[in-house]
This record gives sequence, structure tokens and C-alpha cells, in this order.
Amino acid sequence: MPKIAVESIQVRTGSSYPAPHDAAMAGRSQQRLGDAGGLTQFGVNLVRLAPGSISALRHWHERQDEFLMVTEGALVMVDDTGETHLAPGDFCAFPAGDANGHQIVNRSQSPGAFVVVGTRTDTETAWYSDIDMKVEVREGLMRFLHRDGTEFQQS
Amino acid sequence: MPKIAVESIQVRTGSSYPAPHDAAMAGRSQQRLGDAGGLTQFGVNLVRLAPGSISALRHWHERQDEFLMVTEGALVMVDDTGETHLAPGDFCAFPAGDANGHQIVNRSQSPGAFVVVGTRTDTETAWYSDIDMKVEVREGLMRFLHRDGTEFQQS
Repeated sequence: MPKIAVESIQVRTGSSYPAPHDAAMAGRSQQRLGDAGGLTQFGVNLVRLAPGSISALRHWHERQDEFLMVTEGALVMVDDTGETHLAPGDFCAFPAGDANGHQIVNRSQSPGAFVVVGTRTDTETAWYSDIDMKVEVREGLMRFLHRDGTEFQQS
Repeated sequence: MPKIAVESIQVRTGSSYPAPHDAAMAGRSQQRLGDAGGLTQFGVNLVRLAPGSISALRHWHERQDEFLMVTEGALVMVDDTGETHLAPGDFCAFPAGDANGHQIVNRSQSPGAFVVVGTRTDTETAWYSDIDMKVEVREGLMRFLHRDGTEFQQS
């Protein structure tokens, strides 16, 4: 069925970030809508942010276009230019290779949500703007490294 | 700016379909959100459907994944399995190569709208389910053909 049964899709919490950065992701949950619909060329996730939570550490993608649409709540996009308030129906685009680190933050007292689309590529590197970390994705495996390529030590 | 200024994006009407099928597309308008945001790997369009209008002739894509989310109104998805009612917040996915022709129809008395995402590929062929027509896209040019490959004659 092309219509996606959202209520039947697993709700994922937690984060693949190395400690202590994984703790920052409490309050985020995600459902993989695109996978549920059989799509492979891009991912589509429905992301819910509890009050006070964030979508990701501020980051940008080398190879993957990213697009999002707010569906619920009052959210804030933080990027290199500062802060931008977002309401339901607002859209943001982050072209591949644009080194403008971004994240979505819920500073409100109510739940927020957005749908995010990202290209699937064979390999990817994403860079984190506010800490000395990048992630390399090769053959489906994520490796968190310092910017100089040395292994990220969990603390 | 990553936040997309929707109000500043050109609203496109009309259709590239050969006559008489172009006439069926009156009442549809589109804004290219992804292009406005500098994205190249997939397209994102905000499509508005006036009462009685349709998103497209019923079709499917050989090479491009497609995803949509209803943002306004009461719409109907028509595909090989029949009709499915869609409300704001509903999602549909159409994997590349799945020969399930689909379209969105607004049978209501009020405007409807959805956001649709489709992969960009170098070449594409889409097939129309209800008429003897396909479209081949090569180097950005669309050629409408009969299913047997002969040129579609406008009437």
C-alpha cells in the first residue's frame, strides 16, 4: 500500500553518537517513513522532539542533500547565521557540501515534530560544527573520528 | 538561508502533457521548494490542487523514488488498488520501478495541497496507466511517446 501506516512503524530512540554526546539526544524519537514505504534512494524520517530536546548535534553533510518540513510545534533552527524560528508548514533545505552546520531545537514547553528527507549515498562524511568530531559512513558502518582522522575516544 | 521563503517562489501552472491531456491539469499549481533551497539530488514541490483538479495523469516511474505528504485539505489517492482518502499529515511512498500507477485527486469543495519529493536521475521513463502514453526524459528534455515507442500525436 502506498499510504504509509505511521502508527505501525517502530519508534526509535537513542543515538549512535559516542558518549558523552549520546546523552544529548534523549527526548528525540524517530520513525523511518521512507523505509516503511519501500524507498531506497532517499530516507524520510518523522522526528519528534520533546520539550528541551535537539534533532542532532549541529552538523553538515558532504554528499547528501537534506530537506525538512515542520509538522508540529514551535521549533528553532540553529545554523552558522544564528537562530531561525520555525512553525508548522515551514521548510528548510541544506544542500550537500554547504558547510553550514545546522540542528533543530525544541525550546518550547510542547512537543515538536518535523519530517526530514536525506539522500542515500554509498559513502558519506558529516562534520560537527561545535565539537572536534566527524563521522564517516562506509558500507553502512559509522565511524566517529576527530577532525584529524584519529579515533574518537568515548569519555 | 536554509529556511525557504515560500512566498517568494514562482507559482507554476500549466502542464507539459500533449493535448488534450494538458487540459486536465488546470487547477494544479506548483512551487519548486527544493530548487529554491539549492538542492539538486531530489526535487521537492509544493503542489496545490483546486477543487476538482488532479496532480497528474495516473503514472509510475521506472527509476525515481517518490514520496508525498498531504499538508492541506481532503484528497484522494488513486492507484491500481482503488481509492484511498488522505488527510493532512498522511504520507505515501511510491518506490521506483513499482508499476502501480498513482495520482492525487481533489474531489472536495476546498483547496488541497501536498509536498512531493522525487529523486533526480539522469534519465527517466514514466508510464501512464490509463492511456497509451509514456514519457522519456533525456538530458532534461521530455518526449511523450505511445507505449510502442512511436511519437504521441497531439490532438
